[in-house]
Amino acid sequence: MSTVAPISVHRVSGHTHTERPDLLAVEEPLEIRLGYGPVSERGQRTLAVTMRTPGHDHELALGYLLAEGIIRQRADVLSCRHCVQDAQKEGNVIRVELAPTVAINWALLDRFSYASASCGLCGKTSIDAVRQQGATPLEADITVSAELIHGLSERVRQFQPAFKHTGGIHASALFLADGTIRRVREDIGRHNALDKVVGATFLEESVPLSQYGLFLSGRIGFELVQKAWMAGVALIVAVGAPSSLAVDLAREAHITLVGFVRGEQFNIYTNPQRIR
Amino acid sequence: MSTVAPISVHRVSGHTHTERPDLLAVEEPLEIRLGYGPVSERGQRTLAVTMRTPGHDHELALGYLLAEGIIRQRADVLSCRHCVQDAQKEGNVIRVELAPTVAINWALLDRFSYASASCGLCGKTSIDAVRQQGATPLEADITVSAELIHGLSERVRQFQPAFKHTGGIHASALFLADGTIRRVREDIGRHNALDKVVGATFLEESVPLSQYGLFLSGRIGFELVQKAWMAGVALIVAVGAPSSLAVDLAREAHITLVGFVRGEQFNIYTNPQRIR
Repeated sequence: MSTVAPISVHRVSGHTHTERPDLLAVEEPLEIRLGYGPVSERGQRTLAVTMRTPGHDHELALGYLLAEGIIRQRADVLSCRHCVQDAQKEGNVIRVELAPTVAINWALLDRFSYASASCGLCGKTSIDAVRQQGATPLEADITVSAELIHGLSERVRQFQPAFKHTGGIHASALFLADGTIRRVREDIGRHNALDKVVGATFLEESVPLSQYGLFLSGRIGFELVQKAWMAGVALIVAVGAPSSLAVDLAREAHITLVGFVRGEQFNIYTNPQRIR
Repeated sequence: MSTVAPISVHRVSGHTHTERPDLLAVEEPLEIRLGYGPVSERGQRTLAVTMRTPGHDHELALGYLLAEGIIRQRADVLSCRHCVQDAQKEGNVIRVELAPTVAINWALLDRFSYASASCGLCGKTSIDAVRQQGATPLEADITVSAELIHGLSERVRQFQPAFKHTGGIHASALFLADGTIRRVREDIGRHNALDKVVGATFLEESVPLSQYGLFLSGRIGFELVQKAWMAGVALIVAVGAPSSLAVDLAREAHITLVGFVRGEQFNIYTNPQRIR
């Protein structure tokens, strides 16, 4: 499956119409299924359906499960692969087998978990719900310079091939305090891009990802801060503005929230001590 | 409840930090509950929870129900009001009483309906699901000039007070073929803004809203086209780019999709006959 798709568009400039080829970001539904429980009474359940850009689906699934508090370590996951039974849906269903020891709080999930569509997999409806997952305030000692933040957006852009072609796809990136871009993921949904970059890193390293800062190409909503908190990332730098609830949650989590990055200007909304 | 909230931010410009007041777009969860069935066996059910900007909640709820195919005319709704029983949630729970005659296909809803959070209330996972709701291709004869499209974004901007203050909130607008802006709604979620503007218009007029074009301040995902289709709006003009699936659905619905509006330039992705 591809991340971009060709199309012929009518380009209108003033009064001139020209037909020409263009590229679009691909959007397809992904169903995440869970296999859970002891072998003798193994259960299966659809956890969420999200509209995402195909590619890195296993990272998306694992990042989502991490954000929802369902998994906490690599040993919680036995396998994660696309289902091939249903030919029509091939590539659009992914099944995660959890270790028999993983306990799922279905009541909490049913109450608070609502899968999103175009914007990605979203979650909780209140700060209380995040607290119930056992998240504690982050004490990561990552600090970055203002210069690093000034140039971040442009440096991440180098790793956004789908954005270059389409102009219509979000990105999430993890970076180190010295400015090294560790990993970038693109998706039509902001939440999916974040799940992918966290899921990929979780596969190689343990959470908390406290040595990293998180770059977001768009605005900062509540769920994005929640996902960062659950991954243990204490610094968020976004091109867009945060919502009121995103700022409230960042305060609660001791996360440093930087937004509205425009050239050499930006705003620090919470915990400015991590910016020097 | 307010749509913007005050905050003190650290503004960094080069190496200068200044503490100053700023305004954020408010984000709060809204739970939509349905009362349904004959009086003798009246049921209640939570349909969705969305992260939205407070205000115009009843419009949001009705626009969402319309997009989901649950209601089709004003007579389908007996009442729509905030619940006041739970003081903590006051203002964040809205209950819609459906007429006893309204039949709900719960199986279809359970299968395909996933409420979103930060990006609004989203829906279906495939074009098939939209077809199952009985939507038919739109034959609206609305046509607009290229000049109208060139100036649309700036004219809608006049009716976006929350964007003016925060720079971080989406807008949806309905406009007539002569360029008259009929109604504008703002919300932190793109899908919510669309539900609000459709819900408000649905309260005063009948669907299909075939005399209107729809303006969107962001990108065009699958669900936004779906919502337009269910409301009977055959022309979408967006600042951002569409996804592959949005274009596929617009073709199916005979909707004219215009995107990437930048000054005097834009792209027509489907059904260019409505642009003269």
